[in-house]
Amino acid sequence: MRTDTSAEADADADTGAGRADTGADADAGLLAPCRAGTAVETATGDRAFLQSMLDAEAALTRAQSALGQAPEEAAKAVTAAARAEAYDVRDLALRARAAGNPVVPLLDGLRAAVDRTAPGAGAYVHRGATSQDILDTALMLVADRALRLTAAELARATEALARLAAEHRDTPVAGRTLTQHAVPTTFGLKAAGWRALLLDAYDRLAAVLDGGLPVQLGGAAGTLAAFGAHAEEAGTGAGTVLPLVARFAAETGLSEPALPWHTLRTPVADLAGALAFTCGALGKLAADVLVLSRTELREVAEADGGPSSAMPQKANPVRAALIASAARQAPALAATLYGSLAAEDERPAGAWHAEWQPLRELLRLTGGAAGQAAELTAGLRVFPARMAGNLRRTGGLIVTERVAAALAPHLGRARATEVLSAAARHVTEEGTPLYDVLAAEPDVTAALSDARLRELTDPAGYVGSAPELTDRALRRAPRTVRSAPGADQEAGR
Amino acid sequence: MRTDTSAEADADADTGAGRADTGADADAGLLAPCRAGTAVETATGDRAFLQSMLDAEAALTRAQSALGQAPEEAAKAVTAAARAEAYDVRDLALRARAAGNPVVPLLDGLRAAVDRTAPGAGAYVHRGATSQDILDTALMLVADRALRLTAAELARATEALARLAAEHRDTPVAGRTLTQHAVPTTFGLKAAGWRALLLDAYDRLAAVLDGGLPVQLGGAAGTLAAFGAHAEEAGTGAGTVLPLVARFAAETGLSEPALPWHTLRTPVADLAGALAFTCGALGKLAADVLVLSRTELREVAEADGGPSSAMPQKANPVRAALIASAARQAPALAATLYGSLAAEDERPAGAWHAEWQPLRELLRLTGGAAGQAAELTAGLRVFPARMAGNLRRTGGLIVTERVAAALAPHLGRARATEVLSAAARHVTEEGTPLYDVLAAEPDVTAALSDARLRELTDPAGYVGSAPELTDRALRRAPRTVRSAPGADQEAGR
Amino acid sequence: MRTDTSAEADADADTGAGRADTGADADAGLLAPCRAGTAVETATGDRAFLQSMLDAEAALTRAQSALGQAPEEAAKAVTAAARAEAYDVRDLALRARAAGNPVVPLLDGLRAAVDRTAPGAGAYVHRGATSQDILDTALMLVADRALRLTAAELARATEALARLAAEHRDTPVAGRTLTQHAVPTTFGLKAAGWRALLLDAYDRLAAVLDGGLPVQLGGAAGTLAAFGAHAEEAGTGAGTVLPLVARFAAETGLSEPALPWHTLRTPVADLAGALAFTCGALGKLAADVLVLSRTELREVAEADGGPSSAMPQKANPVRAALIASAARQAPALAATLYGSLAAEDERPAGAWHAEWQPLRELLRLTGGAAGQAAELTAGLRVFPARMAGNLRRTGGLIVTERVAAALAPHLGRARATEVLSAAARHVTEEGTPLYDVLAAEPDVTAALSDARLRELTDPAGYVGSAPELTDRALRRAPRTVRSAPGADQEAGR
Amino acid sequence: MRTDTSAEADADADTGAGRADTGADADAGLLAPCRAGTAVETATGDRAFLQSMLDAEAALTRAQSALGQAPEEAAKAVTAAARAEAYDVRDLALRARAAGNPVVPLLDGLRAAVDRTAPGAGAYVHRGATSQDILDTALMLVADRALRLTAAELARATEALARLAAEHRDTPVAGRTLTQHAVPTTFGLKAAGWRALLLDAYDRLAAVLDGGLPVQLGGAAGTLAAFGAHAEEAGTGAGTVLPLVARFAAETGLSEPALPWHTLRTPVADLAGALAFTCGALGKLAADVLVLSRTELREVAEADGGPSSAMPQKANPVRAALIASAARQAPALAATLYGSLAAEDERPAGAWHAEWQPLRELLRLTGGAAGQAAELTAGLRVFPARMAGNLRRTGGLIVTERVAAALAPHLGRARATEVLSAAARHVTEEGTPLYDVLAAEPDVTAALSDARLRELTDPAGYVGSAPELTDRALRRAPRTVRSAPGADQEAGR
Repeated sequence: MRTDTSAEADADADTGAGRADTGADADAGLLAPCRAGTAVETATGDRAFLQSMLDAEAALTRAQSALGQAPEEAAKAVTAAARAEAYDVRDLALRARAAGNPVVPLLDGLRAAVDRTAPGAGAYVHRGATSQDILDTALMLVADRALRLTAAELARATEALARLAAEHRDTPVAGRTLTQHAVPTTFGLKAAGWRALLLDAYDRLAAVLDGGLPVQLGGAAGTLAAFGAHAEEAGTGAGTVLPLVARFAAETGLSEPALPWHTLRTPVADLAGALAFTCGALGKLAADVLVLSRTELREVAEADGGPSSAMPQKANPVRAALIASAARQAPALAATLYGSLAAEDERPAGAWHAEWQPLRELLRLTGGAAGQAAELTAGLRVFPARMAGNLRRTGGLIVTERVAAALAPHLGRARATEVLSAAARHVTEEGTPLYDVLAAEPDVTAALSDARLRELTDPAGYVGSAPELTDRALRRAPRTVRSAPGADQEAGR
Repeated sequence: MRTDTSAEADADADTGAGRADTGADADAGLLAPCRAGTAVETATGDRAFLQSMLDAEAALTRAQSALGQAPEEAAKAVTAAARAEAYDVRDLALRARAAGNPVVPLLDGLRAAVDRTAPGAGAYVHRGATSQDILDTALMLVADRALRLTAAELARATEALARLAAEHRDTPVAGRTLTQHAVPTTFGLKAAGWRALLLDAYDRLAAVLDGGLPVQLGGAAGTLAAFGAHAEEAGTGAGTVLPLVARFAAETGLSEPALPWHTLRTPVADLAGALAFTCGALGKLAADVLVLSRTELREVAEADGGPSSAMPQKANPVRAALIASAARQAPALAATLYGSLAAEDERPAGAWHAEWQPLRELLRLTGGAAGQAAELTAGLRVFPARMAGNLRRTGGLIVTERVAAALAPHLGRARATEVLSAAARHVTEEGTPLYDVLAAEPDVTAALSDARLRELTDPAGYVGSAPELTDRALRRAPRTVRSAPGADQEAGR
Repeated sequence: MRTDTSAEADADADTGAGRADTGADADAGLLAPCRAGTAVETATGDRAFLQSMLDAEAALTRAQSALGQAPEEAAKAVTAAARAEAYDVRDLALRARAAGNPVVPLLDGLRAAVDRTAPGAGAYVHRGATSQDILDTALMLVADRALRLTAAELARATEALARLAAEHRDTPVAGRTLTQHAVPTTFGLKAAGWRALLLDAYDRLAAVLDGGLPVQLGGAAGTLAAFGAHAEEAGTGAGTVLPLVARFAAETGLSEPALPWHTLRTPVADLAGALAFTCGALGKLAADVLVLSRTELREVAEADGGPSSAMPQKANPVRAALIASAARQAPALAATLYGSLAAEDERPAGAWHAEWQPLRELLRLTGGAAGQAAELTAGLRVFPARMAGNLRRTGGLIVTERVAAALAPHLGRARATEVLSAAARHVTEEGTPLYDVLAAEPDVTAALSDARLRELTDPAGYVGSAPELTDRALRRAPRTVRSAPGADQEAGR
Repeated sequence: MRTDTSAEADADADTGAGRADTGADADAGLLAPCRAGTAVETATGDRAFLQSMLDAEAALTRAQSALGQAPEEAAKAVTAAARAEAYDVRDLALRARAAGNPVVPLLDGLRAAVDRTAPGAGAYVHRGATSQDILDTALMLVADRALRLTAAELARATEALARLAAEHRDTPVAGRTLTQHAVPTTFGLKAAGWRALLLDAYDRLAAVLDGGLPVQLGGAAGTLAAFGAHAEEAGTGAGTVLPLVARFAAETGLSEPALPWHTLRTPVADLAGALAFTCGALGKLAADVLVLSRTELREVAEADGGPSSAMPQKANPVRAALIASAARQAPALAATLYGSLAAEDERPAGAWHAEWQPLRELLRLTGGAAGQAAELTAGLRVFPARMAGNLRRTGGLIVTERVAAALAPHLGRARATEVLSAAARHVTEEGTPLYDVLAAEPDVTAALSDARLRELTDPAGYVGSAPELTDRALRRAPRTVRSAPGADQEAGR
């Protein structure tokens, strides 16, 4: 059992059965290329959780000290001892099995470390708190950082998409429904749509961050009773109990909740929703990029398509595939988290524990996918000539709708439909362009001039309000994320 | 095997034969006691969807008429023909198979009906629109009504819970964590917590409703092109295209979206999140009621426990069980909806179709569960004497935490823990109350007066800040739901 | 929906209002085109459940009669009264709310009906049983029929696919990975793969059916105690209790379980797995058809593409889209059912109730999707010329892998890669076919004859073992579904 | 954000710095107490995956060598180089981002290592294969080991449960439905039920293992074409291609599939189902233990209840809570895997990548939960006296059903019900035992002797067929897991 740190452990670094075991059992990202090596991965790793738990413990003792419930020396000692590097993550993980959570074993080490610098001060560690106070607060600290990193990646992606939308405001491309060419649209509107959806995601993350994610502090059953008991002993009076929560919040940079939320899991459920939304929104971008990248369409390409182990000529849309894989995993993880809302009693036997890994994984996947999207959009190659070529694939049938609208006043709706259906068969079977077929049809030439017929059968001329919609969508700005009180100093960590 | 509609059934949609088929295949609520017979069930039934699709068609023609793109007579004729009673739901369902959605077959009937009153006006039905414009708008109309009904039930439940919380502000009850007595809390705080969570749910529904759910209007590929083509023919100019969306929104009582959202599914995903949240929040209430209703606890009981087919003496917590069943189903339905965010192209081949039933079911389940919760909370019977009795079940061990805090300054933390561990064993093994054991322990009596010891070992005296937290929580009011423009007339339907 | 016209029902009827409400609230398939009008929809409708519950009650009394625990007259009377047409489904649904399940209200009506024909015999209805015995048995009866219907549709689809695979055993088509052309394959192998997966699905359904789905019979808490008590009174002795389960099974055509499974939900979980598998397998077929149907690929088309409300020229792959929508919904429904395995006590408060609608929906979706697949595969149009044309889209790069293998022995692996990378750039940038580029490269012509180079660069010649694999796959036959004892007479209903 | 490995890191993969980074980002089990430190965790860690990928590569070259397609020296060199310890997992994870999977970067290192011992032999590494061949084979190798470990834990648990069931064959305990006492049952039947469900799980795992999980081998698009091309060059002929798959299977200890299954994901879906089933089955055990452990019931207790950080007196049912948390997470993970069945083309862009982490997590969770269950059941403390005491909680009402059955023949069903309803009210309101109330009721005493009445009102005497059912259930043996060919030598690794 390695609880510390120190020279011994450092010296031991290479022998380390302990470390080797860690490596052997760990998920170090080998199966998670979507997020391996990202900042959000680091921010959500076991060590980040450990540090956040330590931060929570230190913040609590500092808050108690500020309110006269603990000596300042203890607060200082706990703060000094709250360094993740001083603990063996794997050892804590193993010892967490007995109590069912990692706070219980962590306390042994932390109290001992505090007592070494400030004898007796160990008693002020975790005073009045319950494990869930610390672990939930740590979850929120981790989530806060992960969300900010993710929002920053989304912002990068939306900026790139704004550029693409503006640049291709008038670039015609086939609009496709149920896999078939429907009517033309513009690539600008597609990009503006992706941006709008990512802004929706950004706004939902911002809404969760707005005002700050909450600390958890309630003691054994959410009544703050032990804090009161200790305050009583300390002679500071019951009046310092509720303020302790506020002060704890300030020390962590998180916000103060109205009630302890041990089994009122709004913060976790809100995270689930915002993250599943974000992954899904990114999944829409990826789904479209995957379609448009197909060998037969080739309307866009990722800047640096991924290599293949078997086919040197391929340039795979790897980023889009990884984003798509995240979008496929996120809804189920969110479902587990929504399911944990139904948590019985003052601390449930399973529902709480079932949140930890899914929430972490959801944070990582979403942050990773957002990072991939930022890279993908920054480097996306767009091929307007291919778009124009594909638009002509149906020989002009893609504008049938428009021609029908123009002919109906002249021929009547029924006859117009009849003429166009016959023309469509002709185009499909013979490959003759629609213009040629219609130009040979007396009913049509009687109704429309040749110039008008040419205009009506030009796909590029039938993009409707796509440019105006693009302009409108580009005027939208992202929601401002108001920092939680204290978040600034926290950000400066 | 398609039991298809005979010519006879086609000829006369009002015959009993058609209806009989409906009955045989239909889900009329037999397996859904949570929502059978509720207003939200009616508001989300097939007929409500049909009426909403018709309302959308009528609103569109009216909007076009208002902008000079259709004759007023056509608008009137479509509005008059837009009565669900005039159509055979089952027949439409069967004919929806060919096109993959019910709008296509509906149009045949609607156009014919319009042409009967206003010959030629049928051509103005659905002019420029795509099926998804109508079906998505109908989904939003249905969702809007269902959400308002659900919010009203939540409001009823939160009012009942406010009363319970106030009444039991100081009623001690065992706080339970991981199924074990931890420290005391109050029933008032439990009720206040349930209320807080339901208010969170209410606020999330209100946020979705705020400003109004959006209409859908984009035409074949979301460019509004056909509306422009028709406007051109009508001579009203391209400038009347974007205003058409606004006018359509006003006619429906929904809001105007920034972009067509055929594949930008924010409204559906937001509904998924808010509904899954609500079901989960209700699930927390149910989980607690189920625990507290157990024969061995019997701290609460539903007003009218459900009968059993085998055991006349039982009074089952049926409402809580039904709510719990809804909470178990909702997350997965939401997951499917979040999954549909990743919708390719301008209309996806599957993702959109996969939303319809899960969204309807989620609306029904949530509305039904909210209604059950309103009834449950209105009639919940609370037994403070049983709570007091159960609090004594551990012989006072439930306040060990408090006694430890009081003894620590006198005995030191280590010795205090030792004394209490020994006492706990004694209490557990012999059944002697904790007070008696400690009163016989010289270390304890040297530290604490008898009165103080009695006070410290009384569970009812150790509820911490529960009453103050209850007061604080009860000061919170629900978020105001701002009606969408036009919602008033809509509500008056 | 009420179709019955018994005197009693008429007397109770609120005329049309009741009927209208039924229609209004019901799901008659308007939002479910994948299964509307199918045999599996009828087999899983509320009326089918009602009939199955009645069948279960009648089977129970007959079994008791056979063992001397009930008069033969009672068995006859119950059997005669067990006609769904005699009950009002909607009324039962509404009255199910009080008890939380539909068996309790059904019993009132059934007992009264029995007493009318055989006075006093009503007492032998449901004697010793609990609601769950009846409802679970009904679920299994319904599931059994739905699975058989689904398996039959799968069998139709696999036969069509066998024909397609045989016919196109040697038809080259681009193999695509991560959306990019990789190396050629054959359409025969694709079809054989779809068939293999559907056979896997068929086998999984067959495995669930094998030996028969089980009846449920346990009484109030699964001990069969009340059956024993009644047997004691009837003087038949405790020795007739376990045989009652076997006889009940024989009467229903289902199998006898080793234990009552009120909270041992293996049968439901197995259904969940087999159905989710089947929907997913069908989803693979649909995913491929959707890709191959794309306007730009057009390698296959559904026989009767669905019409569009806006675009007359389109022929949508509607069946594939509906199957895909089913495949997107099924996993979440299965997840809810797997979640219900964790059912506490002898009957859980929520987990059981949470199974009913998801299981029904999963049965319907899967059966509907299988039916769509049978139609889709029967009529699938295959365009080998388009496949050949698309194969040439990369100018021959699709066979780079093969040329690399052929050159490596002559040039060394590094030089071969270098030559081909340069050639690939040339092909991509200039559009020159790979053969032409390589034929101008001295290193290549020195190594390979012109004939060999032509052969190597012909995509159609590089399909590997695809034909042999197709042959092998086509030799596989589906698993035999062994009928449960008594299933024959049941099927003859 | 860490995007890339510096040259420095590349240069020295063995430094502590690399390892420390791994620790920071890694999931080393801190949030996963259910599986931290278990054998299944090690068997599913990144290093195990890496080793399995290397094993797959080595097996492939050995198979090719055996068929004359590669020199024996190459096979030996690859086998020798296939040691996970020689590679830096984290570095591979980071480099996997470019290609989207870890095989591509692994090949660089492996080829270089092979070339170092056998110059030129590196060309025989991965010859003809695609990344998915290797990664899927590795997934199956890992799954095979994890399933065997899990099955062994289930076997331990079922043995313990068999002992408990036998020991408590006749121990009465309250049967509870919808949280209320229903009728008595036995603890033996409860334990036998848990065992039956775990045997069902065992059998499902065994069915997946039966005959062996399959290797993957298909080359770029599943046609084995490159193997053919290389065989051609090697002069061994096309006839050695299909045999290569069989030989590859034999070398790995896995089985030979009928077709490459790159997008026919039966093996993964089958794993999903069997694992979700197992977690759910374990969840039933946990759900019951959690109920029975409640402070108010206290009918069972875990041998070593988990400590609490705040409440020294508590002994939490930690193992049950951890199992319950696994059961809550598993269905959603399985849903993601079922969703991946709908994989388009010859390799999908996202669906495949979405399998890796969910499958690993599902294997770990299930194995961990099975281990917890083995420990839990081995040490479960059972308190028959508490069971007997709780049985008396309803004053005898728990046997109302029985008394009703006994009275009905004498009093008629209606009168019997009336008498018992009145008695039940009396018992509930006054707390008088049912025997006393009935003994004072002339209708009852006229019908039943005092001895009979005492017998009828004794809960312990009304356990029905519970003992016989227990006996029957205990006669069942688990399904035999037939080892795959070659599994023995593999197991001896």
